Amino acid sequence: MNKLTTDEILTKDAHLIQSFANLHALKQADARTAIVAAEGAHVTDSEGNRLIDGIGGLWCVNVGHGRREIIDAITEQLNTLDYYSTFYNFTHPAAAELAEKVASLAPAPLNNVYFANSGSVANDTAVRMLHHYNNLRGKPEKKQILSRMGAYHGSTHMAMALTTPGYSTGWGAVEGLVHHLKAPHKYREAPGMSDAEFLAVLEQDMLDAIHRIGADNICAFFAEPIQGAGGVITAPPGYHAAMRRITREHDIMYVADEVVTAWGRLGHMFASEDVYDCVPDIITTAKGLTSGYQPLSATIISDEIYDVISGPDAMFLHGMTYSGHPAAAAAALANIEILESEGIPARVQTTGKLFEGLLRGLEDMDMVGEVRGSHFMMGIEFVRNKDTREEFPADANVGGLVAKEAQKRGLIARALGNILILSPTLIMDDALIREIAATLRESIAKVSADLGI
Amino acid sequence: MNKLTTDEILTKDAHLIQSFANLHALKQADARTAIVAAEGAHVTDSEGNRLIDGIGGLWCVNVGHGRREIIDAITEQLNTLDYYSTFYNFTHPAAAELAEKVASLAPAPLNNVYFANSGSVANDTAVRMLHHYNNLRGKPEKKQILSRMGAYHGSTHMAMALTTPGYSTGWGAVEGLVHHLKAPHKYREAPGMSDAEFLAVLEQDMLDAIHRIGADNICAFFAEPIQGAGGVITAPPGYHAAMRRITREHDIMYVADEVVTAWGRLGHMFASEDVYDCVPDIITTAKGLTSGYQPLSATIISDEIYDVISGPDAMFLHGMTYSGHPAAAAAALANIEILESEGIPARVQTTGKLFEGLLRGLEDMDMVGEVRGSHFMMGIEFVRNKDTREEFPADANVGGLVAKEAQKRGLIARALGNILILSPTLIMDDALIREIAATLRESIAKVSADLGI
Repeated sequence: MNKLTTDEILTKDAHLIQSFANLHALKQADARTAIVAAEGAHVTDSEGNRLIDGIGGLWCVNVGHGRREIIDAITEQLNTLDYYSTFYNFTHPAAAELAEKVASLAPAPLNNVYFANSGSVANDTAVRMLHHYNNLRGKPEKKQILSRMGAYHGSTHMAMALTTPGYSTGWGAVEGLVHHLKAPHKYREAPGMSDAEFLAVLEQDMLDAIHRIGADNICAFFAEPIQGAGGVITAPPGYHAAMRRITREHDIMYVADEVVTAWGRLGHMFASEDVYDCVPDIITTAKGLTSGYQPLSATIISDEIYDVISGPDAMFLHGMTYSGHPAAAAAALANIEILESEGIPARVQTTGKLFEGLLRGLEDMDMVGEVRGSHFMMGIEFVRNKDTREEFPADANVGGLVAKEAQKRGLIARALGNILILSPTLIMDDALIREIAATLRESIAKVSADLGI
Repeated sequence: MNKLTTDEILTKDAHLIQSFANLHALKQADARTAIVAAEGAHVTDSEGNRLIDGIGGLWCVNVGHGRREIIDAITEQLNTLDYYSTFYNFTHPAAAELAEKVASLAPAPLNNVYFANSGSVANDTAVRMLHHYNNLRGKPEKKQILSRMGAYHGSTHMAMALTTPGYSTGWGAVEGLVHHLKAPHKYREAPGMSDAEFLAVLEQDMLDAIHRIGADNICAFFAEPIQGAGGVITAPPGYHAAMRRITREHDIMYVADEVVTAWGRLGHMFASEDVYDCVPDIITTAKGLTSGYQPLSATIISDEIYDVISGPDAMFLHGMTYSGHPAAAAAALANIEILESEGIPARVQTTGKLFEGLLRGLEDMDMVGEVRGSHFMMGIEFVRNKDTREEFPADANVGGLVAKEAQKRGLIARALGNILILSPTLIMDDALIREIAATLRESIAKVSADLGI
């Protein structure tokens, strides 16, 4: 199929509905980029341009493209057992083996795994499980959820309710169930404060919400270790451990959304405990779990929760046909084997820090307000005035302008309004990392000059 | 991995959370069956038993297991482009080609395809799109949904709200948004009526609901052509066309959930128009779209809806990382190619009718109240008393008893309380079809004798 011309691809593509896009704009000439091949840290478009995949597919191709071991594992699994379900009394070796492996890597009490096929459904599933859990505990009123401004937890009706409200404007989401705490976004929310002062504000915000809603009405707190699609927002030091302490004191389950942060991106298999000293009750994950080679997610729950929902009189009335799909499970096992055997998380502690440091170096540019994030999960916020932190208008799309310049120069980056996001593969050497930083500097300089900043 | 012993598999499997299961019961000895291999119409369990796959994986392995063409297409695609997203301005040839192919097969006005990875998300997506559509049309109050008792539309928080309430008992779902009309279930709801009389009742039920809720508050009617996981319930002749007429008169979008009924199962690529003379506004589908080899679903929408959501000022704020995953799209293309080149839907019009006829023949047994469904989508309802239609208690699980006997005799069937469901692969010859019918007769006779009926 990669023999099609760009025009042929785009003619067929007129029937495809893209995600998170201005569909009208995509109808215009030259609006779309067709990616036809990929290898290592690079992809190739239909015009033959070789591009650094600076967004790792979509924060997901952790071990890089074209990995023989993963493709072979998928093929071999399909040759043996193409599909069977894990419904009712059925299971199969690949799903069982992966469940055991994931449980062995997750923090100690998280031993029980429900598979689905997207981070959205992993989070949707966590909500459904916790509602069921509280029903079984005789606490049917304990259903409300705390989330945060700036959060992104996916795109089902429920996952969108967990997500920051800006994403559902003009759309809709489950109403009345989710309360959004302050974003832990010091650059915008607390410019004059120390980290400790801001942390105290955020703790009080959560305590106020619990007081207002009542702990008896709250089942869970959802939090990404670093807010991703909300703009790569890192919380002040100690934040997650503090929130963990407060939620535990109020019998509120802590759900860590590690769809992006797990599987090496921050230098560890999971970030919650190893980076943030926070052992949650549930971890949801996807993306790097298979490095994107197959659609797979996991909702990993503590023994405390599992013991209740697997009690004598409970029926587990939840299911996705492709839960634990054999090919997806085989892909994840091969992917984890690569992460382990090549020591990728440990390597990221060095290479990711180089990447982070070089990107932070862009803060010397006038249009760069803040560079934030950690290791291979970085965001660059562009501002009109660095000293006053004056923002560009929301529709200025300065991130998009920079992304376009970067793509011309051989680098794919992701625009989010006036923010640019980088989440590349985790296998890059120093030269490639330096190339990304240099390309970004050039691209930002070009847009800055065009805008007269 | 298929070299593991049953004990080894089940030890690992203790970390896996199965779907729609009594998790407590699964902890007991001999409760679980591990499927380790599959070929054609058969699967093999970890004890070496070869079994007819009478449920086609999970109503999905339409072209049979182990199809070389599909596995090769997946491998080839992964070798070329393992993953790229269809977010923002990106696309890739496999997603584009599949979108065009699906649009060409769907009823004429349905030309626009959003891919996801489960039927649940396909339906969840349809709701989100229609809410957005009505917001854009300046009708933000037009959000309520009509569904039906007996419906199954999936297991996200939203999809569960569309599903018959029995599935969310003790769990929860979106509240206040979905209204369930009468199930079109003549055997239980209208034993003394003619088809025409019952159809009139069902039409009036919908009209009453529209009158009560107000057409201005209703965005959609969701309906499976045949209700699947609700018990394989077929509506009286003319039902879907009548509902289509009423919904059109009231500006209510008709969403046909063809997750199970499409891709040959009822003898056509899609059932809505070809079997039921009903052209919906949206078709959702999954399962047979890839024959289960890859997790993929599609939400196929009319030009009327697409033109609004792709208008100049609309932003499409919806997205799943694995929307249009290259490997899944390649699998679907190869699967559709098999369906077409081997003429499987047309063949099902003969073989499926034989299957249906032989199963209907079981109605001569005392414990069989009704055999219903069509072609390779069949349900058998067991009753304590055939003349009075007296039901077994809900927890009698007579379907489970029969399924257990069938599995001992080499056939996997699916229990749903006191109903047994058959949804095999579509590639069986007459001999295999007769073997299934004979095995069912034997198994039912055994349970019937045990129960003294």
